[in-house]
Amino acid sequence: MRRNILIFGAGKSTSYLLDYFKEKSESESLHLTIADLYPERIPATIKDHSCCTPLKLDIADAKARSKAIEKSDIVISMLPARLHQAVASDCLIHRKNLVTASYISKEMAAMKEKVKKAGLIFMNEIGLDPGIDHMSAMQIIDKIRDNGGKMLLFESFTGGLVAPESDNNTWNYKFTWNPRNVVLAGQGGAAKFIQEGTYKYIPYHKLFRRTEFMEIPGYGTFEAYANRDSLNYREAYGLHHALTLYRGTMRRVGFSKAWNMFVQLGMTDDSYQIEESETMSYREFTNLFLPYSPTDSVELKLRHYLKIDQDDIMWKKLVELDIFNPEKTVGLKNATPAQMLQKILEDQWTLKEDEKDMIVMYHKFGYELKGKKHQIDSNMVVIGQNRTHTAMAKTVGLPVAIATLLILNNKIITPGVQIPLQKEVYQPILKELESYGVIFKEYEVPYLGYNPDSVAG
Amino acid sequence: MRRNILIFGAGKSTSYLLDYFKEKSESESLHLTIADLYPERIPATIKDHSCCTPLKLDIADAKARSKAIEKSDIVISMLPARLHQAVASDCLIHRKNLVTASYISKEMAAMKEKVKKAGLIFMNEIGLDPGIDHMSAMQIIDKIRDNGGKMLLFESFTGGLVAPESDNNTWNYKFTWNPRNVVLAGQGGAAKFIQEGTYKYIPYHKLFRRTEFMEIPGYGTFEAYANRDSLNYREAYGLHHALTLYRGTMRRVGFSKAWNMFVQLGMTDDSYQIEESETMSYREFTNLFLPYSPTDSVELKLRHYLKIDQDDIMWKKLVELDIFNPEKTVGLKNATPAQMLQKILEDQWTLKEDEKDMIVMYHKFGYELKGKKHQIDSNMVVIGQNRTHTAMAKTVGLPVAIATLLILNNKIITPGVQIPLQKEVYQPILKELESYGVIFKEYEVPYLGYNPDSVAG
Repeated sequence: MRRNILIFGAGKSTSYLLDYFKEKSESESLHLTIADLYPERIPATIKDHSCCTPLKLDIADAKARSKAIEKSDIVISMLPARLHQAVASDCLIHRKNLVTASYISKEMAAMKEKVKKAGLIFMNEIGLDPGIDHMSAMQIIDKIRDNGGKMLLFESFTGGLVAPESDNNTWNYKFTWNPRNVVLAGQGGAAKFIQEGTYKYIPYHKLFRRTEFMEIPGYGTFEAYANRDSLNYREAYGLHHALTLYRGTMRRVGFSKAWNMFVQLGMTDDSYQIEESETMSYREFTNLFLPYSPTDSVELKLRHYLKIDQDDIMWKKLVELDIFNPEKTVGLKNATPAQMLQKILEDQWTLKEDEKDMIVMYHKFGYELKGKKHQIDSNMVVIGQNRTHTAMAKTVGLPVAIATLLILNNKIITPGVQIPLQKEVYQPILKELESYGVIFKEYEVPYLGYNPDSVAG
Repeated sequence: MRRNILIFGAGKSTSYLLDYFKEKSESESLHLTIADLYPERIPATIKDHSCCTPLKLDIADAKARSKAIEKSDIVISMLPARLHQAVASDCLIHRKNLVTASYISKEMAAMKEKVKKAGLIFMNEIGLDPGIDHMSAMQIIDKIRDNGGKMLLFESFTGGLVAPESDNNTWNYKFTWNPRNVVLAGQGGAAKFIQEGTYKYIPYHKLFRRTEFMEIPGYGTFEAYANRDSLNYREAYGLHHALTLYRGTMRRVGFSKAWNMFVQLGMTDDSYQIEESETMSYREFTNLFLPYSPTDSVELKLRHYLKIDQDDIMWKKLVELDIFNPEKTVGLKNATPAQMLQKILEDQWTLKEDEKDMIVMYHKFGYELKGKKHQIDSNMVVIGQNRTHTAMAKTVGLPVAIATLLILNNKIITPGVQIPLQKEVYQPILKELESYGVIFKEYEVPYLGYNPDSVAG
């Protein structure tokens, strides 16, 4: 009897996930049930394979959902995070383990006791970020601690970018995931972190001007801006005493300073709808955010407003996006500025079929051992194959798939609602990921911290 | 039998209101019942007067509230806006007219039909802004229309400032009303307005750099930044065809550019709480928003971050507020940045007992008459007497008081939930306000509009 893996959602991120199971369907005796509102979007190579049963299912249909879960041996939810809860409740009723790549929601956290008591494993945050970041960080943090070291500093950065071979715009950027999240990145509150024991807060409108640089040998220089809350995993990682905690998002150098133009103009605002958005041209959209003038051009008003000199590459970046075009219209009804900007960016920043994306991750670990300070840096680069088999789909989907099989094979056994911070989880997953080319390079660097002289500030 | 006026709330804004009724208590046969949770804060000159009955009352006490309203002939609510609704419901039950200086809430608007049917008058927005702004604008707009003119442009600005004789700081500003509203001004969404038929949006972080200047003869130059929504009264004023609609807040020149420093730093954010705020010094507070450095001073970091040259008056403005002081502590638990900034500003910007405030209002009316374009500007300046008898209390309280008496004397008779846009209301009130020194100066200026050449932009 084959083991039945039920997968909710066959979206973008599932190409590698499904391939993984298909390849192991014989050796591991697996059957896949793929439930989706649009089963036709499951790739033919999977759908037509003997190991797979596509299932047309509306997640809101409680009866169908419950029945499918009852018949499964383990459940994976690749649905949007807000839809996990119905699945989780049914998993608890039918005593099925569950795997998701999403952040633990309040509702999920509230099931903690019940899940533990039932002896079930609800594994969350086991994609890329969150996911591989947790696992790769904990592996080194545990090693430092096992050797008697004391953590002083932890910084962690991730970026979804375009691969060098497909990088052909001045922004050095293309969308590799949900464009909406890119447009709204950093909104909803000040970024918060700790540097040398001092709390720091950056408001949204300054976020993209407070980047720091980092080098990945062989791949050049990157920059990173701060994530909303770098202190989220302070307790979970056991870093309450660390003086510096910083998490960020990686971009190619110059992206953030240029993105800041949109922030300053107000084009990333998602809180109100533009009047008459549907018939508005790109040029009229741009002009909404500039002072009125009966005679001056939109171009000159924007240059003056944002203080862009004639020889500034920032100008080329704007022109490349065609934001001064009076002919192209946005065509979205009752759209917010952010939605309209997204539309304009998608014209230029969408991966073509044969273009490749790139995932980068960079960690810094500062620690004290026998009275001396040390630092380990670690980085990972994964390049995608094409628009379907992206590095993003690989680094999100493979950890989910590997964790699912490990749970199914009783290699991961500790019950509870959890994220992959335990050796039992991260060791076998990171090891298997290496065979798929997801490899961290680790090297010692001189410890500088932020405070060579230990002065308060 | 004296007519009994029931007044809820004896706060800051009621000094002139109460004096007005006291002076007319004999000639108009008035009795005042002043209901407040703390009746002891009613000034002795009022409380001890034979025309007045102080009443200790908790507005949440439905029985006491209803009883007081039942015994009254008309009701004034000077409570915070969110507390009006309970009063309004009781007024409807007991068939009493109601006067407030607050914006019409959704709940108040929903009572429209019932109030009209009952033949009652619920007069709202009859303070300064909203209030005098509505009345003084409608008086001129009606006059222009009655003469056959067609409105092209309406701009309206109000400011609560410090009087020139009490103006002794580099910001040329002191708090004259609720400081919290000043710190949060402009937040909650982009400012929206129309210039020459073109919609314009300004995000919060640019708002204080998009000011325009205006002159009041005898009082010098002022500046104004845009209010949240200049189109709110478009329909109510009958201005759907006007090409330019702009409402703003007035400050002394240079205030907004300097205030923008706080916005840029992130100090006006009210959406999150600062860690360890209670024991934090002013200097530490300032440093929260600056990049970490082991050696550089908070002063130099701030100068560099905000690009403040050595000879820039902006620097003196910051130093004057003592924000680099390492000894003074804020002393507020779990405070937001905005709350901490407010505390720091209150040290310097609170009116002293003998200091005077100043209210300024400025309107521009552009119109076309017989094929020619014209413009009327109109302005009002009121100076307060001291910290209790402020220009703010006068311009908020007197229109409320005058309207109340006009309703009581059947001079205002049109029933309904309303704001003072009708001649029946604004004519007698504006006329009586003049005898209290609340006078608009009106003069013709050349019409420029924003578009002398009628070019699209």
